[in-house]
Amino acid sequence: MTGTVKAWAAQAPGEALQPYEFELGPLAADWVEVAVEYCGVCHSDLSMLDNEWGNSQYPLVPGHEIIGRVVACGDAVKRLKPGDRVGIGWFVASCNHCHSCVGGDQHLCRKNQPTIVGRAGGFAERVRAHWLWAEPLPQDLDAASAGPLFCGGATVFSPIVEFGVKPTDRVAVVGIGGLGHLAVQFLRAWGCEVTAFSSSESKADEARELGAHRVLSSRDAEALKGEAGRYDFVLVTVNVPLNWVGYLQALAPRGRLHFVGAVLEPVKVPAFSLIGGQKSVSGSPMARPKVVADMLSFAARHKIRPWVEEFPMSEVNQAIAHLRDGKARYRVVLRADGAA
Amino acid sequence: MTGTVKAWAAQAPGEALQPYEFELGPLAADWVEVAVEYCGVCHSDLSMLDNEWGNSQYPLVPGHEIIGRVVACGDAVKRLKPGDRVGIGWFVASCNHCHSCVGGDQHLCRKNQPTIVGRAGGFAERVRAHWLWAEPLPQDLDAASAGPLFCGGATVFSPIVEFGVKPTDRVAVVGIGGLGHLAVQFLRAWGCEVTAFSSSESKADEARELGAHRVLSSRDAEALKGEAGRYDFVLVTVNVPLNWVGYLQALAPRGRLHFVGAVLEPVKVPAFSLIGGQKSVSGSPMARPKVVADMLSFAARHKIRPWVEEFPMSEVNQAIAHLRDGKARYRVVLRADGAA
Repeated sequence: MTGTVKAWAAQAPGEALQPYEFELGPLAADWVEVAVEYCGVCHSDLSMLDNEWGNSQYPLVPGHEIIGRVVACGDAVKRLKPGDRVGIGWFVASCNHCHSCVGGDQHLCRKNQPTIVGRAGGFAERVRAHWLWAEPLPQDLDAASAGPLFCGGATVFSPIVEFGVKPTDRVAVVGIGGLGHLAVQFLRAWGCEVTAFSSSESKADEARELGAHRVLSSRDAEALKGEAGRYDFVLVTVNVPLNWVGYLQALAPRGRLHFVGAVLEPVKVPAFSLIGGQKSVSGSPMARPKVVADMLSFAARHKIRPWVEEFPMSEVNQAIAHLRDGKARYRVVLRADGAA
Repeated sequence: MTGTVKAWAAQAPGEALQPYEFELGPLAADWVEVAVEYCGVCHSDLSMLDNEWGNSQYPLVPGHEIIGRVVACGDAVKRLKPGDRVGIGWFVASCNHCHSCVGGDQHLCRKNQPTIVGRAGGFAERVRAHWLWAEPLPQDLDAASAGPLFCGGATVFSPIVEFGVKPTDRVAVVGIGGLGHLAVQFLRAWGCEVTAFSSSESKADEARELGAHRVLSSRDAEALKGEAGRYDFVLVTVNVPLNWVGYLQALAPRGRLHFVGAVLEPVKVPAFSLIGGQKSVSGSPMARPKVVADMLSFAARHKIRPWVEEFPMSEVNQAIAHLRDGKARYRVVLRADGAA
């Protein structure tokens, strides 16, 4: 399909979204076009709207937790056909011929194309992606709540797989928000002992309902001291600085402190705090396509689902304000006019 | 054996070593006593002499790269008998019943006992260790040069094993000194493409002789920029701050920046520099006993040996000055009066 697409865009950093129209050219041979049904609102959308990372281009159409139906396929598209329901996350394309791509690490391709950097995202009638990054949605996952699995879910699931978290591990999730509330569910289903660290006491009961065995305040320095040597894996989903040395001390021997939240202030790591216990600090982006597919199967099998609050697309600015105010429990999803 | 032991000790931070005698009490049932033949001088000995880490106790007898003969065994000692030649490194004992120990990670035991913290090290006629930490020296390793394998060698060999470095990896060794010159040999024999980073141009030819395929200046910021995305594993053996963000950028996707050098100034790690390429920063201490044994077999099979400069024990202060002045090529070893 070509022609005019209606969307919501910010014209400059910090501005409210307004109706915006743009033209789509010819569809590339290995790309699909998807009619958006639902789109999650991620903290990265806010960072991009605010140009916090310095790579935003305006008019900016956010949205990278997209659920929709394939409406057109280029001639070289594999596995998809019009009518298929798919999800699209942070990336819409990778080069597919570099060593990372050929090795299955398409998420680490240096030429991969983020969904909302230099192109329009999911706050729009239609989006396009290379077929590899439009992952079929399993039938037993609910389309209205599945969007957040494609960025938030994939982002927290990836390190569990890539860094070999084991069901016998004791793990902690720091930050119980859009990402963290999915991480707790995944790690509980993975078989781990799960501790949730949250700055918000109001989330404690819900963290337990999500599957946490234990809930601690991320603001309680004494409580953290008492956790020394406990965790095999600490997953940081927040993007604000915390007492990282305290969390390093909370790691068990061979433990890992892992970042998926884009904390802008550098993490200060004393080498000594790594050496004695043979510890690691690491980070990862969204999952590679194979892991996205595994994540969806795992979520379906274990009845893991994002807890969402739905807004119509026309109330996009209210939805964004709700997220900015820290009120989301736990993910905001926009429903497109054409959603089933 | 009990009785008086002659040794060399510093009476206070920064002071020269002087002859010193101390008494040994009864030998514990699972410990051995070893007559020292050779003892390497490690940078950690200097750090301990200077109380750089705040845990030094005086009089301080340094020395934790010890080669010697077993002269006495407690009743419960396994595998060793008087006359056996052994090596002793940074640790002389672990609790042997905590989860780390029982799991084979005795080097990560929280109660393990460093050889020169609160006890006398190898700049002495005799030292004692639990039998587990007195590793038999393979016959085909040269006793006069093997000492540095037990701290320097074990320390750089350990992460190669523990973090799964592969023969197909491109690796870099930062710092070509006591540790680095062994790391280059190990990694070359491991099958890797090896780049040596040294601040000293005078070491370039020797780094190649040790096995480096490539040699770069660790002070050349432009050269480092040109290495972006290259390395699967960068092993840092220095204990001074360098351009760590530059080294993180030099990592390939899934790459690891690993510290065995006790850099005192915290390493500043921007989370972004880890997330995009799914990278890790880590550290490790000396190897566990099983890995020490594997390291010795590997060294023997591949004719890897420390390059040493020998001083008689009576010239210990000259030996230390030689190391402090950065003149060691590449490890100083003290020869005890009784050495064969």
